[in-house]
Amino acid sequence: MKLKTSSLLIAGALFGAAVLPAQANNDAMMDLLKVLRDQGTITAENYDLLANASKADKEAAESVKVDVENVTKTMPKITTEGKIKIESADGNWSFQPIGRVMWDAVSVDGDDNGVNDFDGTELRRARLGFAGSIYDWGYKFEADFAGGDASIKDAYVSYKTKLAGNKLGIKLGQSQIAFGFNIASSSKYMTFLDRPWYADKDTSPARQSGVVANLSGKSWIVATSLTQGSLKAGTTDEHTNGTTFAARGSFIPFQQDKTHLVQLGGGYMTTGGSDNSFSFSNHLTAHEDPISIKSATISGANYDGSDAIGLDAVAILGSFHAMAEYNGFTANGQNTASDIDVDSFSVEAGYFLTGESMKLKNGFWSGVKPKSPSGAWQIATRFETTEIDDNANNQEADMWTVGLNYYPTANTRLMLDYSTVTSFESAGISQNEPSALKFRAQAYW
Amino acid sequence: MKLKTSSLLIAGALFGAAVLPAQANNDAMMDLLKVLRDQGTITAENYDLLANASKADKEAAESVKVDVENVTKTMPKITTEGKIKIESADGNWSFQPIGRVMWDAVSVDGDDNGVNDFDGTELRRARLGFAGSIYDWGYKFEADFAGGDASIKDAYVSYKTKLAGNKLGIKLGQSQIAFGFNIASSSKYMTFLDRPWYADKDTSPARQSGVVANLSGKSWIVATSLTQGSLKAGTTDEHTNGTTFAARGSFIPFQQDKTHLVQLGGGYMTTGGSDNSFSFSNHLTAHEDPISIKSATISGANYDGSDAIGLDAVAILGSFHAMAEYNGFTANGQNTASDIDVDSFSVEAGYFLTGESMKLKNGFWSGVKPKSPSGAWQIATRFETTEIDDNANNQEADMWTVGLNYYPTANTRLMLDYSTVTSFESAGISQNEPSALKFRAQAYW
Amino acid sequence: MKLKTSSLLIAGALFGAAVLPAQANNDAMMDLLKVLRDQGTITAENYDLLANASKADKEAAESVKVDVENVTKTMPKITTEGKIKIESADGNWSFQPIGRVMWDAVSVDGDDNGVNDFDGTELRRARLGFAGSIYDWGYKFEADFAGGDASIKDAYVSYKTKLAGNKLGIKLGQSQIAFGFNIASSSKYMTFLDRPWYADKDTSPARQSGVVANLSGKSWIVATSLTQGSLKAGTTDEHTNGTTFAARGSFIPFQQDKTHLVQLGGGYMTTGGSDNSFSFSNHLTAHEDPISIKSATISGANYDGSDAIGLDAVAILGSFHAMAEYNGFTANGQNTASDIDVDSFSVEAGYFLTGESMKLKNGFWSGVKPKSPSGAWQIATRFETTEIDDNANNQEADMWTVGLNYYPTANTRLMLDYSTVTSFESAGISQNEPSALKFRAQAYW
Repeated sequence: MKLKTSSLLIAGALFGAAVLPAQANNDAMMDLLKVLRDQGTITAENYDLLANASKADKEAAESVKVDVENVTKTMPKITTEGKIKIESADGNWSFQPIGRVMWDAVSVDGDDNGVNDFDGTELRRARLGFAGSIYDWGYKFEADFAGGDASIKDAYVSYKTKLAGNKLGIKLGQSQIAFGFNIASSSKYMTFLDRPWYADKDTSPARQSGVVANLSGKSWIVATSLTQGSLKAGTTDEHTNGTTFAARGSFIPFQQDKTHLVQLGGGYMTTGGSDNSFSFSNHLTAHEDPISIKSATISGANYDGSDAIGLDAVAILGSFHAMAEYNGFTANGQNTASDIDVDSFSVEAGYFLTGESMKLKNGFWSGVKPKSPSGAWQIATRFETTEIDDNANNQEADMWTVGLNYYPTANTRLMLDYSTVTSFESAGISQNEPSALKFRAQAYW
Repeated sequence: MKLKTSSLLIAGALFGAAVLPAQANNDAMMDLLKVLRDQGTITAENYDLLANASKADKEAAESVKVDVENVTKTMPKITTEGKIKIESADGNWSFQPIGRVMWDAVSVDGDDNGVNDFDGTELRRARLGFAGSIYDWGYKFEADFAGGDASIKDAYVSYKTKLAGNKLGIKLGQSQIAFGFNIASSSKYMTFLDRPWYADKDTSPARQSGVVANLSGKSWIVATSLTQGSLKAGTTDEHTNGTTFAARGSFIPFQQDKTHLVQLGGGYMTTGGSDNSFSFSNHLTAHEDPISIKSATISGANYDGSDAIGLDAVAILGSFHAMAEYNGFTANGQNTASDIDVDSFSVEAGYFLTGESMKLKNGFWSGVKPKSPSGAWQIATRFETTEIDDNANNQEADMWTVGLNYYPTANTRLMLDYSTVTSFESAGISQNEPSALKFRAQAYW
Repeated sequence: MKLKTSSLLIAGALFGAAVLPAQANNDAMMDLLKVLRDQGTITAENYDLLANASKADKEAAESVKVDVENVTKTMPKITTEGKIKIESADGNWSFQPIGRVMWDAVSVDGDDNGVNDFDGTELRRARLGFAGSIYDWGYKFEADFAGGDASIKDAYVSYKTKLAGNKLGIKLGQSQIAFGFNIASSSKYMTFLDRPWYADKDTSPARQSGVVANLSGKSWIVATSLTQGSLKAGTTDEHTNGTTFAARGSFIPFQQDKTHLVQLGGGYMTTGGSDNSFSFSNHLTAHEDPISIKSATISGANYDGSDAIGLDAVAILGSFHAMAEYNGFTANGQNTASDIDVDSFSVEAGYFLTGESMKLKNGFWSGVKPKSPSGAWQIATRFETTEIDDNANNQEADMWTVGLNYYPTANTRLMLDYSTVTSFESAGISQNEPSALKFRAQAYW
């Protein structure tokens, strides 16, 4: 008996001579046809036609499989959780829009007569930017628009490679210099609304313009930077900004697991003498506090650069964490000016009531992800002290801060801090004890 | 007769003992093999080998199906039309780059001597920003860069939930306060290039910093806000900005369908007395008009806050729409200052020549999508009046505007407005009748 | 013998009466079943059941195929290499985040006494923006934040169509005017860190606000623009900025292939007399050079507009390229002021050591993609001269620049330039020969 459907003839013509993939012989149909042919159930002629039809079926099925593979193989990887990231299928190109919004409502009780009170709100940080990578190269640009202008944060071109099995990264442009722990940990991850007084100031500057190199192994990281002042109007000049050299290292001497570890760090920073001036000044209880703790000023030819050392330690023990940092800073006076010494330290401790742990990444704080859909709760406290010896005002201040943090989800947080200055001595004049109640709502992406 | 291809042996070894999905038995091949075995056409031994091969085929086909399901299940939802939105597959995370460009070419005929003429262009709005959501939380940051700096618009962290079956939304940060219709409708959707005089000014302020709460049902929305002045330099202070409380509600008493409905709204706003000053001033015929309609100023201790009420109505009847809003505002003078009353209303009507309808969303105007690939055409007219009683200049002005809108596509529009002031009385001095011809090209995303 | 599995009964009930796609008959199973039935190996009853089962199998396989087609058909096209672009599946909507970071480290040796030296860094360009298209319409907004504010670059709404087989594009807003080659080529693609003195200045302005139209064929492009001054604070005014008309054309008289061609271009620009002033001034050896080459100033009623012509030629011969541009500019003085003539030209040549070629796109330089994973190397040199005849200082300057460019990847580049002024005459006073060593790291997306 002979089978003569046109579909089979077409299939035979199309696929009979085609070289089919190896696994095309594996299908049950081919085997069954062979069995039926070999035992004479079907004729050899019908076998050929049916075998061709079977091959055509197989090819059609395989083309769908190839389509699926092509789609999945060439499809960019798109991350939508925790961060937004578009990445080429081979991982060589990536792109990330980045940003953060932090809105504060603050009540500062500055003194008894109310002159130095502040009751209001502040858009503390409102940052937009883009980061990306192109093979071993990368870029980042982020500016803060909270004040109504563009305050440039990161703005660099970067390169990464391997050096003796370790990771080497180089940044050309403006980025964090290689000094300090509290200043170099992102504001997105700080335990409290405000950094300690000594951080984010000349005693521990944040970002400057120049070259930063990082070398890191499994449990250590060393960094050096050679920079000039930050890019206030896009430009720095060695003659007016001086040059800053900084170096920092941190390592993890003890690590039981990801949530039980100790990290120790230290660094040194020296700024050339051609800086046009130095003075230390920071708001006392809150970023909006009209009262500041501040030093005298050394200007022009009287200023001979400055030196600072920093030491820091972090311990994470499950839901508990402790952190301490010391900053010893000297601005060198010459001619008619004497030195200004600024000695500071801060100690903080926190505890997650809901079982989460603080996280370190590349030596600094990173983000916390709540374990439960109802969010994470953390309580924390910090003591900080700064002593200014400038042979003029000689201010000293101590401050306690207690904080309650609620993380509704990853990337969002509500914060409530109460800060009170327990000692504020300025050239022998003892003031009241200013305090501030501070609330923040924040989100980042 | 015995079948001994290695492919079958391998398949048998691999899949013979495997637990296959329930539907693996449904295929025709398995059934055919059973039939052939049961009637003795093939041996039991060959049946086993062929059945294993068939199962292997089935598994391969199912793995492709699973691949496809995995791809479609985990693939972020990406919206490219009308807006740009990247959303996680489960919808819990979303991210949107947002922005708008509005470029105006304007000719103002201010008076007879030409001193107050303006013939030029303006980048009226140039906004960039990001919005996103993380489960029930969200964030938005958008700034306007048209003036060469960053004028902060929305900057908040938000939370949404259900309350007694209704939608409750809370915003912490800077956002629209709960007052006014014309001011709260986005500039992307305005019928004319410029808002009425009273909107977007102290008589109906736009965004302030604080807390805004919205509760909405199917055909109603109520909102309240407790805020301070807008974030000019990122900061507001109760002592200099005062505190504003506002409340607004709107409901739809009549709705036949989406394009035949009436909405009524009203609101109240009160600002604390510590605002440092009040005066009303707005450009007369266009944003670039050198001439303004303006009031006297109440400053410092003479200013005792202000109060305002607003009433508004919208009717959409197919391609026709009408809208009216009343704004009654009083700035309270004390000591040596008398009150400043600013009474305003505007009435507009429009008609789509191409069959589209105006659209309301959450109580305010939303975007129009042309029905035809050749775009949508709309004609419209507005009358507005503002009467200032400040016991000084007592200005009053009436203005007619006629407009022609062309929407080439969703998200783009060309606008042509002609505005003419029919009455402008300032302390008894009657000026000429200034007019302006205004063109806008706009796109948003 | 009768087959009675429930799976087959269900399949029969579900699919027996269904209209299956035409190719559903092509499968080998259907054919085999027919053969077996026709020759009596299986009963007609079993045939029906098995045929239904086979159809069900086929349908299941086809639904997977349809799923795959749906996914691939509706999936936005996402470009991650060279640029970031999200495009709707039908191509009618597209969206691109854009930006560039250029960081310079510069040492200027201004004169012998060191007063005019500069040793420092500059964030030369830091741009963020978005571009998109909606059917035939489009938009672009990009601002430069390097200086700490938002310097608006492109900000327009655009429209494109076909005109007699050629491409017509219209831009409403701020964009490049139709004049000049070096100024209109993007800073991303410049051979050297700095444009020649005459480019990016009043003698060859960059972006202005108005209307720009482009018409282009296969090997030619003509453009005209009618604009006012650039959007310094978002606004331009005809009365203070004047109106500029410009026209430019370029064509390719010789083209062997993509990397062997010659392009010739020329243009004319005239600015109305109501510009409030004119003076020419540009940094001498580098953007940070304190010394400038500059003209006298014509102000107010003495200024009667200006006229300029430009001529340019580009030759690409494999890895070698040469480019020359002439700019002849006259600012017309009247009343008490005489004309200011600024005559300039520049000639550059470059060679890729690694085999790449310079690329033209729409008449201007475009991006270079390295052939090798280890990057591309290019050497280049430029001579430029500017002669100012202002009947006052009559400055003239010549400068040589040599440059070394390393392109690690597409979209990234490291640049090293050395510029030295060989002649700088200012009203007969011969100064020293200032020079500058300039390094740039850049990335764009």
